[in-house]
Amino acid sequence: MFSTVNKPAERVDAYEKVTGRAKYGADLQFAGMLYGKVLRAKQPSARIKSINVEKARAIPGVWAVMTAQDVPCNEIGVIIQDQQVLAKERIYYIGDGVAMVAAESLDVAAKALESIEVEYEEMGGIFDPLVSKESDPIHPERASNEVVHHKLRKGNVDEGFAGSDVIIEREYETQFVEHSYIEPEVVVAVPHENGSLVTIYGSVQNVFATRDAVARCLKADLSKIRVVQNHIGGSFGGKDEVVSAMACRAALLALKTDRPVKMANTREESIVESYKRHPYKMKYKVGATKDGKLMAMEIEAVADGGAYACQTPFVTWRSVVQATGPYEVPNVKTDTYGYYTNNVYTGAMRGYGSPQVIFANESLMDELAQELGITPLEIRLKNILKNGSVTASGQKLDRHEVSLAEVMKKATEAIGYEEKYKEYSKPQRGDKRRGIGMAISFRGCSLGAEAVDGAGTVLSIQKDGSVYLYSGLAENGQGLKTAFCQIAAEELGIDMKHITFLEANTLISPDSGSTVASRSTLVGGNSVLNAAMRARKALSEFLAGQYNVPAEGLIFKDSNIFTPDGKKLISFAEAANKAFWAGVQLSHVGWYVAPSIHWDEEEGRGNPYFTYVYGCQIAEVEVDMGTGEVTVLNMAAAHDVGRAINPEMLKGQIYGGVMMGLGYGIMEEVETDEGYIANTNFDEYIIPTSKDMPNIIPIIVENPDPDGPFGAKSIGEPTLELGAAAIANAIAQATGRRIRSLPLNLERVLLGHPLKKGRGRK
Amino acid sequence: MFSTVNKPAERVDAYEKVTGRAKYGADLQFAGMLYGKVLRAKQPSARIKSINVEKARAIPGVWAVMTAQDVPCNEIGVIIQDQQVLAKERIYYIGDGVAMVAAESLDVAAKALESIEVEYEEMGGIFDPLVSKESDPIHPERASNEVVHHKLRKGNVDEGFAGSDVIIEREYETQFVEHSYIEPEVVVAVPHENGSLVTIYGSVQNVFATRDAVARCLKADLSKIRVVQNHIGGSFGGKDEVVSAMACRAALLALKTDRPVKMANTREESIVESYKRHPYKMKYKVGATKDGKLMAMEIEAVADGGAYACQTPFVTWRSVVQATGPYEVPNVKTDTYGYYTNNVYTGAMRGYGSPQVIFANESLMDELAQELGITPLEIRLKNILKNGSVTASGQKLDRHEVSLAEVMKKATEAIGYEEKYKEYSKPQRGDKRRGIGMAISFRGCSLGAEAVDGAGTVLSIQKDGSVYLYSGLAENGQGLKTAFCQIAAEELGIDMKHITFLEANTLISPDSGSTVASRSTLVGGNSVLNAAMRARKALSEFLAGQYNVPAEGLIFKDSNIFTPDGKKLISFAEAANKAFWAGVQLSHVGWYVAPSIHWDEEEGRGNPYFTYVYGCQIAEVEVDMGTGEVTVLNMAAAHDVGRAINPEMLKGQIYGGVMMGLGYGIMEEVETDEGYIANTNFDEYIIPTSKDMPNIIPIIVENPDPDGPFGAKSIGEPTLELGAAAIANAIAQATGRRIRSLPLNLERVLLGHPLKKGRGRK
Repeated sequence: MFSTVNKPAERVDAYEKVTGRAKYGADLQFAGMLYGKVLRAKQPSARIKSINVEKARAIPGVWAVMTAQDVPCNEIGVIIQDQQVLAKERIYYIGDGVAMVAAESLDVAAKALESIEVEYEEMGGIFDPLVSKESDPIHPERASNEVVHHKLRKGNVDEGFAGSDVIIEREYETQFVEHSYIEPEVVVAVPHENGSLVTIYGSVQNVFATRDAVARCLKADLSKIRVVQNHIGGSFGGKDEVVSAMACRAALLALKTDRPVKMANTREESIVESYKRHPYKMKYKVGATKDGKLMAMEIEAVADGGAYACQTPFVTWRSVVQATGPYEVPNVKTDTYGYYTNNVYTGAMRGYGSPQVIFANESLMDELAQELGITPLEIRLKNILKNGSVTASGQKLDRHEVSLAEVMKKATEAIGYEEKYKEYSKPQRGDKRRGIGMAISFRGCSLGAEAVDGAGTVLSIQKDGSVYLYSGLAENGQGLKTAFCQIAAEELGIDMKHITFLEANTLISPDSGSTVASRSTLVGGNSVLNAAMRARKALSEFLAGQYNVPAEGLIFKDSNIFTPDGKKLISFAEAANKAFWAGVQLSHVGWYVAPSIHWDEEEGRGNPYFTYVYGCQIAEVEVDMGTGEVTVLNMAAAHDVGRAINPEMLKGQIYGGVMMGLGYGIMEEVETDEGYIANTNFDEYIIPTSKDMPNIIPIIVENPDPDGPFGAKSIGEPTLELGAAAIANAIAQATGRRIRSLPLNLERVLLGHPLKKGRGRK
Repeated sequence: MFSTVNKPAERVDAYEKVTGRAKYGADLQFAGMLYGKVLRAKQPSARIKSINVEKARAIPGVWAVMTAQDVPCNEIGVIIQDQQVLAKERIYYIGDGVAMVAAESLDVAAKALESIEVEYEEMGGIFDPLVSKESDPIHPERASNEVVHHKLRKGNVDEGFAGSDVIIEREYETQFVEHSYIEPEVVVAVPHENGSLVTIYGSVQNVFATRDAVARCLKADLSKIRVVQNHIGGSFGGKDEVVSAMACRAALLALKTDRPVKMANTREESIVESYKRHPYKMKYKVGATKDGKLMAMEIEAVADGGAYACQTPFVTWRSVVQATGPYEVPNVKTDTYGYYTNNVYTGAMRGYGSPQVIFANESLMDELAQELGITPLEIRLKNILKNGSVTASGQKLDRHEVSLAEVMKKATEAIGYEEKYKEYSKPQRGDKRRGIGMAISFRGCSLGAEAVDGAGTVLSIQKDGSVYLYSGLAENGQGLKTAFCQIAAEELGIDMKHITFLEANTLISPDSGSTVASRSTLVGGNSVLNAAMRARKALSEFLAGQYNVPAEGLIFKDSNIFTPDGKKLISFAEAANKAFWAGVQLSHVGWYVAPSIHWDEEEGRGNPYFTYVYGCQIAEVEVDMGTGEVTVLNMAAAHDVGRAINPEMLKGQIYGGVMMGLGYGIMEEVETDEGYIANTNFDEYIIPTSKDMPNIIPIIVENPDPDGPFGAKSIGEPTLELGAAAIANAIAQATGRRIRSLPLNLERVLLGHPLKKGRGRK
């Protein structure tokens, strides 16, 4: 049926990457380039009494030393402008920058930083969001420490609990998690390049967000700031605000010195400065009838926002929408909160507020099943969303196939869930014990009612029939370039090797917001399709005039163009050439805006997303009862993606997501102690390696979505959000012990609690 | 009436240029960059017997040595592929490249070139197009030396001459002319940059033409080749094919070495290699009634194409259209020819085939007037084109105001022509004698029936109301960026300081052909206007929905948007912001295709251009009869431009064009002797300096053209094409001596002929 999509096309950036030609931020060199470095507070809460930069200025090779007073607009922030380019009077967390330098070498820059004298007055800090809730504002200009409070309301939970036969209440907790991208943050700012005030190159996840920050900081027009994305060594939501702040700093130094300035974080700097996935403290209460029908849920989830609001307002909104999971629950009351603390700040990370609540909710479902004496599969099948179901927010699911039952069936069958569940339910002896656990989810695709969900793509057919294409969304390593080329190639009926996809660049790309929320294929892909359709229409109309055939219904396939009855008219390349020489417009902007959605913040109800994806992951684990070590043996991961644009890349997303979920579940934790971070490199911050990789069984479920390009929807985040919950449930079965706090590392599995903290202070 | 257009806005690139921040090709530095150099034949006609590059390869620091056999496709050329990237067997002119190197420094490159051993067999060359006409083909694969033959036919010249009272026949001749851009050619090729096979940066006049050449040479898709224009230090038609060849060479070296390669010509290399303005030999025959009505003209013009066809086919086509000047002539027979020789090749230069025929025809008109005993003004006024006139090619001029009479009136009044003509007609004594001479022209705007005349522009409104804009046409120093920003600002009612115009770049700009033929303002400007109109329409429709007002007729002015009755709705910036957050498409491609035109090559008739501009220049000169020195005292230059988008920049074009016309008229000549060039630098090739500048009286005549953006049309070339003829006519009046060969330098004015040649061989 398809020629290019739904096929395992080779990544368009494969050649560059495997030959080492792909330029990452660190590879960038410019004539006369200087090196920028930031002096960080390295304490979580303090007042700056004085900064003396005179010695630094006097060092040969130092071109600029700047402090907050040199910044045109020092307040930045993606939603709330509570963050400072450089700390002016207050230090809010250990990563705050106090001063910065640009020097001819990294050595000179380091020497300059050392010579800057800062006098601090240490202040007490707040490191627990629940303490923060009751405390005076950390940010003096804010009324309270509450960053945000979202609610969701359905029915009447009091009546729901009253009608329940069984009610259980549980508390769950999750940890700070590092994005662990392989490439630390790096930007180069080049001043006055071709009519721009400043150009930012580097490992930028969201070129438009970074542009917003730099334009604000410099008080400049957006169109004077160019942000160009290089090849990026991973992001996972992480190279956004932290890179924007870095870009502001580099831009300031570049304009001050009139030289290109490179800023690259070391791994330690990256871990100390960059925002993390939010730790959540969650209280869940659920009521059900004795035959397992859910009657009511009441949830309170508190996120530690750290020092700055960053994306806490949006992260916690996704949590409020998805907190009850993919279940029909007649009565729901959910509240999510974010509070400021003096911890490292928290923001977007793959999952974006869902892994926390899924860990809680899917643990809870197993606990409820146990209470009811039914299996985890049974409780889920009794309550899952189906076609026509109404979600907790009151949205009727009637625009797409609600395929959760199918997804669960495929996952359970693939891993042999039912037999293994029975097997492992029998009493086990010895040190090595096994369990199997499942977790399911529904996930709203794209930004949802968080923000406008529009994306643009420019597609231009050249006179030899080759095509260039660029998008407002950015490759983050996930394969966006390849998927977009496949979509364009399919629509134009050409070989995708003739398509060149450009790097994201704010001065050429239509502002399409951010490459986040697994929205690229769905929203961006639709804009690519739209652009290709416009170009195809222009060519068709030209050919209609040339050949006296109807413009509608021409078939573009195999690099040729045919009449509806299959007669070849002309090759695509010849058609492009003829059209060009006839003056036909062959460059087109494609634009896509997501269907209307809405959210009533006051009532806590609405249609938050226009479509959803459904996933089921099942983990089979072996636990060493003597050491607490958990080995994940098998992991079935079934995801309904609408349509797989590129099945191989999609499997890659599944493999990566499963591993990230595994790390989240049993290993990863940024250990903080009163704002200090103990593990600032990968010697102590443990992430999964290939040795930890289970046998992953990726299962692609396809129910084409009428809103998706060729039916496709998201896969970036759903693959990550289920692993921790599934593993926790498996461990519970294996050990008989329910652990409600992530990660389920050796100590927690063995002792039920982590070892004492206290290693962070330096 | 206007807010931004028709006003003397500051150039948008002024700041960059005056602060030295503007990066020209020579300023470019890339990490690991190598230097490319070409070994040139330095003889006009030879066979290559052998090339030995072994010694060069062995020199430390030499990264690549390449010859023709290393070139995937060695045959390039904009119209006919008769040019070689590197000479394979035959040398056709002194500038031919034989081998090239890439080395770590210019010194090493020079050493490498010296060590290459080439054995030539000298062959006889052909250096006169009239000899070439009768000779065996220079290019063995061609049937003859005729590059092209164009004709134009109207009425019956035999009958026309039979009905004439006076018939005169004259021969005129023009010279090779160097473009004399201040910056010699330079390109840098960067391999494998962001998904492109190769990126070319540099002083490229026409990014798409250079892309065509490089893609052909490398046998690659157009969309894999990126050509980016830097700031350019003048071009005047000159940085086209010669830079394309250079780009091919740099690209080959870059791909061979996998390093960026810079190639920059010295001035000597530039003058030896680059193509020139065509020398013409012209025979004119004209018949008129005794009261001065033109009855018939018969013209034969032969262009020296030099070694390669280059743009000779198109240059001679403009000549054939304009050879009879802006006159109504009932019977016309014109033939223009181009022949290959072994001289330096010839191509596009400001004027493009018009300065030669205007020099001849306007000299001829004065000679005819003298014969008839009437004044130069009288003969012109009796015969000039008016509204509804039919041109020599049979085109009825009824789409725009044919304003020649007005243009002539303004010029003659401004300089006091009639009084001075009378004054200088009286006998003069002494060494210093004065004369006044006029020349008039009509000039087809844009490419005409030469090629498709389409152009595209992308305009994107950002969410703060600032705008970026880029075009398929390229700034060549003429002020295109500024004019385009003015057009967009006018249509959107915003301050042009909020618009950022990008450098031309083939991977982002819609292919709009070449920045030639004075088509930028007219064709490119229309595409900018179209893009701005599309964006404005999108905003209007959005606002209509928001404010319940009709979308049509909203007024965009002073950075605000008003209802038709003048009520302010919203500021432009707020409207942009609201529209962005509502998902409105704010990026638009504007496209413009010139109205239908045609040319019947067989019949020599047609509507070659869709509109014309009209000009009149009048020169007042003083001639030193003892030395032959000509001083141009005053120069009135009146040009109907439709509408001046930027009157100050337009005057700049007039000043520059007048000076270039002056150089062409009395100074400049590339002295060739059997293919060798004598004057390869500005010590011997004399161009006008500020000391030679006359009192220039620029006169802008505005008759808005319905086809132009805000009524505007061209000015780039018309300003240059009249000077030589006007000066020649003034000298004839001053000296009583008619010189029919350019330049009218000391020797010709004093002796009637140039000094003997013979200085070129080295």
